[in-house]
Amino acid sequence: MPEVPDSFADLLERPVFAHLATVRPDGSPQSSVMWFAWDGSRIRLTHTSTRQKFANLSREPRVALSIADPDDQYRFLEVRGTVESIETDPGAEFYRSLQRRYGMDYEITDADVRVVITIAPDRYVAVRGGGVVGVEV
Amino acid sequence: MPEVPDSFADLLERPVFAHLATVRPDGSPQSSVMWFAWDGSRIRLTHTSTRQKFANLSREPRVALSIADPDDQYRFLEVRGTVESIETDPGAEFYRSLQRRYGMDYEITDADVRVVITIAPDRYVAVRGGGVVGVEV
Repeated sequence: MPEVPDSFADLLERPVFAHLATVRPDGSPQSSVMWFAWDGSRIRLTHTSTRQKFANLSREPRVALSIADPDDQYRFLEVRGTVESIETDPGAEFYRSLQRRYGMDYEITDADVRVVITIAPDRYVAVRGGGVVGVEV
Repeated sequence: MPEVPDSFADLLERPVFAHLATVRPDGSPQSSVMWFAWDGSRIRLTHTSTRQKFANLSREPRVALSIADPDDQYRFLEVRGTVESIETDPGAEFYRSLQRRYGMDYEITDADVRVVITIAPDRYVAVRGGGVVGVEV
């Protein structure tokens, strides 16, 4: 497993938002904003088994997530990884843990189709942009 | 051309950051944070002809950008589109216009390889998440 660059680990530890890139069956990319959990080695997402992203991931397990510091969006981390497992989420317990992480609390009406997507990172790309180091504009 | 949903047009008009998803030659996705310009119908990006994303776009012109409201990241717009042209940027004039849009001013050292990437939107996906409408967590 690759190591997260030390000075960017906070972006995985804090409840910030990830933009998840997946590849659709026709080969075109898709990007959406997602909550995520981080346990020090894996990224986990909640999703449902009824949506397009689920179909995308079942076909093409490689993904990329970009995570920008909300306090300084010129500082961001890209995580390229592979879906390791997609499991059911009994009682939506994992989804509820994400609600707590992100400080939200609302009724979950689709618990029966919720899944937990586990992603194993293959590579980290750390960028500090805006004319400072490795401008990525 | 599709129409931008009215209540999300500000995300294209304001100098917020876009997360650009592209597809690499091996078919895996890549995601990075980018500045962009918007003229009411096209998205334009600055890039260099020497980097991976340029190679990706030359091979697979379909892209997706997700743009979250920095003041409320549960409100975001995905733009799926196709690269319409990649042109040189003489004197880095377009790059300089992006610097002004984003309130930055630093020396541009790679003007000779800067290009302007023009993207024609094929579809907009507007999401208001977080348990309100169309939860996308």
